[in-house]
Amino acid sequence: MDLTIPATMKAALMTAPLQISVVELPVPEVEPDEVLVKVMAVGVCGSDIHYYEHGRIGPYVVKKPIILGHECAGIVVACGEKANRFSPGDRVAIEPGVTCGRCDACKQGRYNLCPDVQFLATPPVDGAFVQYIAHREDFLFPIPDHLSFEEAALNEPFSVGIHALRRAGFQPGQTVAIIGMGPVGLMAVAAAKSFGASRILVSDVEVNRLKAATLLGATDILLAGDDASAEIIRLTNGVGVDVALETAGHPRALKTALSSLRRGGKLSIVGLPPVDEVGMQVPFICDNEIDIYGIFRYANTYPQGIQFLSSGLVDIQTMITDRYPLEQAQEAMERARTNKAGSLKVMVYPNPIA
Amino acid sequence: MDLTIPATMKAALMTAPLQISVVELPVPEVEPDEVLVKVMAVGVCGSDIHYYEHGRIGPYVVKKPIILGHECAGIVVACGEKANRFSPGDRVAIEPGVTCGRCDACKQGRYNLCPDVQFLATPPVDGAFVQYIAHREDFLFPIPDHLSFEEAALNEPFSVGIHALRRAGFQPGQTVAIIGMGPVGLMAVAAAKSFGASRILVSDVEVNRLKAATLLGATDILLAGDDASAEIIRLTNGVGVDVALETAGHPRALKTALSSLRRGGKLSIVGLPPVDEVGMQVPFICDNEIDIYGIFRYANTYPQGIQFLSSGLVDIQTMITDRYPLEQAQEAMERARTNKAGSLKVMVYPNPIA
Amino acid sequence: MDLTIPATMKAALMTAPLQISVVELPVPEVEPDEVLVKVMAVGVCGSDIHYYEHGRIGPYVVKKPIILGHECAGIVVACGEKANRFSPGDRVAIEPGVTCGRCDACKQGRYNLCPDVQFLATPPVDGAFVQYIAHREDFLFPIPDHLSFEEAALNEPFSVGIHALRRAGFQPGQTVAIIGMGPVGLMAVAAAKSFGASRILVSDVEVNRLKAATLLGATDILLAGDDASAEIIRLTNGVGVDVALETAGHPRALKTALSSLRRGGKLSIVGLPPVDEVGMQVPFICDNEIDIYGIFRYANTYPQGIQFLSSGLVDIQTMITDRYPLEQAQEAMERARTNKAGSLKVMVYPNPIA
Amino acid sequence: MDLTIPATMKAALMTAPLQISVVELPVPEVEPDEVLVKVMAVGVCGSDIHYYEHGRIGPYVVKKPIILGHECAGIVVACGEKANRFSPGDRVAIEPGVTCGRCDACKQGRYNLCPDVQFLATPPVDGAFVQYIAHREDFLFPIPDHLSFEEAALNEPFSVGIHALRRAGFQPGQTVAIIGMGPVGLMAVAAAKSFGASRILVSDVEVNRLKAATLLGATDILLAGDDASAEIIRLTNGVGVDVALETAGHPRALKTALSSLRRGGKLSIVGLPPVDEVGMQVPFICDNEIDIYGIFRYANTYPQGIQFLSSGLVDIQTMITDRYPLEQAQEAMERARTNKAGSLKVMVYPNPIA
Repeated sequence: MDLTIPATMKAALMTAPLQISVVELPVPEVEPDEVLVKVMAVGVCGSDIHYYEHGRIGPYVVKKPIILGHECAGIVVACGEKANRFSPGDRVAIEPGVTCGRCDACKQGRYNLCPDVQFLATPPVDGAFVQYIAHREDFLFPIPDHLSFEEAALNEPFSVGIHALRRAGFQPGQTVAIIGMGPVGLMAVAAAKSFGASRILVSDVEVNRLKAATLLGATDILLAGDDASAEIIRLTNGVGVDVALETAGHPRALKTALSSLRRGGKLSIVGLPPVDEVGMQVPFICDNEIDIYGIFRYANTYPQGIQFLSSGLVDIQTMITDRYPLEQAQEAMERARTNKAGSLKVMVYPNPIA
Repeated sequence: MDLTIPATMKAALMTAPLQISVVELPVPEVEPDEVLVKVMAVGVCGSDIHYYEHGRIGPYVVKKPIILGHECAGIVVACGEKANRFSPGDRVAIEPGVTCGRCDACKQGRYNLCPDVQFLATPPVDGAFVQYIAHREDFLFPIPDHLSFEEAALNEPFSVGIHALRRAGFQPGQTVAIIGMGPVGLMAVAAAKSFGASRILVSDVEVNRLKAATLLGATDILLAGDDASAEIIRLTNGVGVDVALETAGHPRALKTALSSLRRGGKLSIVGLPPVDEVGMQVPFICDNEIDIYGIFRYANTYPQGIQFLSSGLVDIQTMITDRYPLEQAQEAMERARTNKAGSLKVMVYPNPIA
Repeated sequence: MDLTIPATMKAALMTAPLQISVVELPVPEVEPDEVLVKVMAVGVCGSDIHYYEHGRIGPYVVKKPIILGHECAGIVVACGEKANRFSPGDRVAIEPGVTCGRCDACKQGRYNLCPDVQFLATPPVDGAFVQYIAHREDFLFPIPDHLSFEEAALNEPFSVGIHALRRAGFQPGQTVAIIGMGPVGLMAVAAAKSFGASRILVSDVEVNRLKAATLLGATDILLAGDDASAEIIRLTNGVGVDVALETAGHPRALKTALSSLRRGGKLSIVGLPPVDEVGMQVPFICDNEIDIYGIFRYANTYPQGIQFLSSGLVDIQTMITDRYPLEQAQEAMERARTNKAGSLKVMVYPNPIA
Repeated sequence: MDLTIPATMKAALMTAPLQISVVELPVPEVEPDEVLVKVMAVGVCGSDIHYYEHGRIGPYVVKKPIILGHECAGIVVACGEKANRFSPGDRVAIEPGVTCGRCDACKQGRYNLCPDVQFLATPPVDGAFVQYIAHREDFLFPIPDHLSFEEAALNEPFSVGIHALRRAGFQPGQTVAIIGMGPVGLMAVAAAKSFGASRILVSDVEVNRLKAATLLGATDILLAGDDASAEIIRLTNGVGVDVALETAGHPRALKTALSSLRRGGKLSIVGLPPVDEVGMQVPFICDNEIDIYGIFRYANTYPQGIQFLSSGLVDIQTMITDRYPLEQAQEAMERARTNKAGSLKVMVYPNPIA
């Protein structure tokens, strides 16, 4: 593997919605506590597509050209003077949110709620559609030789599933319903399998996604519809599931997830609906003492995620449907944007895989 | 105190909605594991009023004459042959829900979710508007001499507040917003004070209820309105509260409670809204990783509640606005039904307090 | 399978230490809430051997002839009039401790601490070395057809491992050291594998036990010795394990378990040492904020255990080294008593397996 | 209050065991993320005395002259260029351990286990017996005007008590036994009162310490002895306490603490015994499913501690028995060293309290 560092590098710069240009930029300097990583694989996330299409996500507005991409992994090529956890040649997964370490949220172990986080590809912070990236060393995690860069990059959306299950106190042997089989939902299936779920019941409107879910560990697949929760209840002997995850960001999916729960069950809401307010069955929540957990990114998931992915229990590479070099970043984004049903996960490769 | 047991007793029987007759019934026999309690004080609960007015609460329908009342305390007058925890003369609070002890919920310590619970004054189980009641001994709890029967009876709604705070992981020194100052909300104020809350911010539409809240420990009172949550945020230095309780069963109150929370805050929903579905701010829940807990009655709260009430920290007798003998049970119910704003807590006394 | 119920049955009665006679007894009548189970497999536990050898375990003294055996499974042949969870022919695992359901411990979900528990083969309660046993229905659990009675019987010691891991908050992907590879330790290995442990490091003085551990999922085996903990630290990159279990009941094993932990690690003590007091490294416990959990039996583990055993992830039948019919109960006990190193698990079969 | 910053300041430098010289040093420069604090009150801690007497605590050895003192509070007089949480004139409590924010322990919210912590007065880091100290702003906490600097300084040992109770899951209304009434034990009494303990039973060998405990909230005082735990059991109706804290660092005290617990009770070990190994009742721990928690300093306690101290519920100033200006730092240390029984808390004042 070539570890020499050039003076300039290619970067995929979004100059306006729907317009990405590959430009030549200086390779970044590292701060003393940073490491320079040669980026080997980057996944395209739904948030990338949203910025690409709309130039904003809620309060986060793209005001100047931005580099997208935040699901990434690569090889260490240089270390800042105080960065001593890694050496050139080390293979790493990159956790994209760099937090302050000094606010209440950080000190209490919920650093995903840090108000000062610098998160890759969230305006105004540039992302990972570049050949080299400088990142604080404590948000890099070593990966074993047998884990591909692609898999390591996907540890990012995998982490969301892990975090959603952890927040819901998921225990090995429990049952889970996961509503919505987009990339986040599919990764949650893989996470549930890694957590030892006895039953993983999933629902979506697209048959090909349900097929992918089966490959990742879903035990029961259901076409989404008004009676999906009734079917989940039926399949669990009239009891309902221990834990449900909503990953579709859709009001009906949320209702399905909630209605699938057993008495005393727990729901993690992962998907952001496109509206401020969604109707929820409050009497059901009270009568059954449901717990509901909002999910925002993740914290302290990278080592566990890498451990799961390295164990061979799940094969998340089955999710990767499309692959592009960095020069075709725009094509990659268009593919992901226009073929949401067919393309499960689109990957971009900033450097040649030797 | 007279511990002799007569052959018959007075009972307030609801024969139809809005109709209560005081009848003479045999004093009940005790089962081997039961204790006979001379009932000394019974609080009128919102659910009693609802059955009295409508003859049903959701799926629970009054199909034959029923005796209402489930917030109660009294004196032990006889013990079943296997009941050895108490002796005649013992003063006790009565936990009204008798659970099976053998289902999954019971075995896991969440006996309030027992599907086979027998709960006083929930059809078809008769309640406590009687002079004598037989009750399983493990749902009776001794009270100290200096705790009045009235206070001991109110340990029931007090338990709801304790349970709601426990479910939300409330810690001494934290801040809490309680929305809705009906009897349940007021008891929750007393519970929050007992838990060592540093700040108890409350909201209601009725000024006299807010005054009562102040007596029970509320530190900040707000007239309910569209800007109540903004005011709560402002009063907590722009941060929001650690925990919020919704006790009003009203969609707007639920929105206020949710919007009052800090990032990472926790909401317990106590109040049952009169509709199946209520709009909730799901993006807010996700972005701020809110926890939401449905509340259904309580479990394992009686000893702690009696401990709190006995400590003298809160004076819940300030809540009692109206007092009636059993013979005037109908007047008591009418008072509670027609003067919801003015009557905070109406009490009924089945036996003379010597 | 023959479901007819005879009038009498064979039972293995311990009349004095080291003396077991097979006698003919009436088949027990069932109480209304009990089920009659035809016992198909019973494991010999260390506590059985201890009663057999010494006539007592600590304060529990055998004062009259007793039937031993508490790890058991069988077939339902009759149901009491109020027992409606099962039908004749159902295959079940038997949880041996029948608790009151009415004390504080039971109500709080820690029913293993119930002071009034009736536990099979704990004096004066008779055990399962019989052809038919009457047991309260809520302590019977259905098992799938593909799970053998032997495996279902071993759900009992398996439950101890599950409980020890749960108490220590064990999470999938974590590392665990298990010190002592007797039957309880071996079952804990199987439990750790079921919980998705990434690394299971085990230690014992007997090579054949370490071999058995490997079959059950141990990833690293160590001959017990003064440097076992140092080796565990070394094998975990100098960090130490997340969780350790002591199952040997030996002071040196306890020291090894404790010393193997990472900073912030957790220790469950399963093994009862033969002395009242054992030296523990208190400065180490404080400096590293270790958590230590005492383990007494288990609670709420049966469904999860059956789920794990049915999943095919672990093959606990590899542990069974010796098999005897009920008539040879004494030989079974002698084998277990005198060949503790060689016999991992001795099974007794009260009825012929058709 | 004089906020002008001189060029030099007085500092109490320990040049050798038992030798402290007051020297003139430059006032420290602040780093960009630091704040300069004029130190107004410093408590003398047992660890200070130990370094003063022995020049080491376990592996921490004083190899060059050191400034002691780490329980401190003062006034902000200058802020680094990136430090924007405070302004000159702000009154603050100083949390003495500055952690990295980037290791696993920090990210998981257990920053007290950070291996790279810089802790005041722990070699080679200098402490607070100085007139001015530079400290990272995120370890300073604002205090209200009505809280004295002395009380704010004592938030440090108070934090230990808070942390010990939190680790043991202490709930308002529970009972606690605290063994050892040195300064840490006394502060734990104040913490238990702040947490709403219903019963605080304490034990020590010194009568004057027991008297001080009473002032701080102890409900039952016992002279230490072989039967202290029996007495605690008796005083809790034969049940034992919910939580026990060992703060004496003495084997017998540890045994008393453990033996005082109810079934399912929890023990926090705060006191470091002077030996590597202490005998513990392991069968008792197992049979009763005791939880034991090692305690090392604290994390995330300062805001809660300040809240408690500001509430007026406890008056920790009753603990302060001796007061010295900085010039008499050696006298202060000698007083604390030679009068351990009589002097509860010795305070040093580096600047005149205007």
